[in-house]
Amino acid sequence: MPLIKISVTLKPTLLDAQGRAVHGALKNLGYNNVEKVRIGRYIELNLEDGPDIDGQVREICDKLLANPVIEDYRYEVVK
Amino acid sequence: MPLIKISVTLKPTLLDAQGRAVHGALKNLGYNNVEKVRIGRYIELNLEDGPDIDGQVREICDKLLANPVIEDYRYEVVK
Repeated sequence: MPLIKISVTLKPTLLDAQGRAVHGALKNLGYNNVEKVRIGRYIELNLEDGPDIDGQVREICDKLLANPVIEDYRYEVVK
Repeated sequence: MPLIKISVTLKPTLLDAQGRAVHGALKNLGYNNVEKVRIGRYIELNLEDGPDIDGQVREICDKLLANPVIEDYRYEVVK
């Protein structure tokens, strides 16, 4: 049963307030060598093996896991 | 400047209520071939190249990005 690892992030042009807050917190902790923090969601799911895994993952992401208007997603299939 | 991709998930023994809800929603949408959904956070950051990137990423995760008591994290360094 393949494992699908999906990461969903805000599109790069949008302000990521959560990422900015974490960036500020890291600077306060003394990590001045950190740049550009972006925060998103990570989803792991197992899908029964079938003929069109990629198509199905894309469908699931577009319908439920990501908002394609403001978010990008990437996924990786681990057999 | 290396890009660090970090994923944080609840430890496998803990109930992931959000993952369970998404699993139920997928079943309602007709995706009966999905198993074991786990949801976590995804963090991307750029770190200035230095002598001990791994050590620093682990420190940042333990201190700020993950709660090591209930969460596991994995990371990947993309040079």
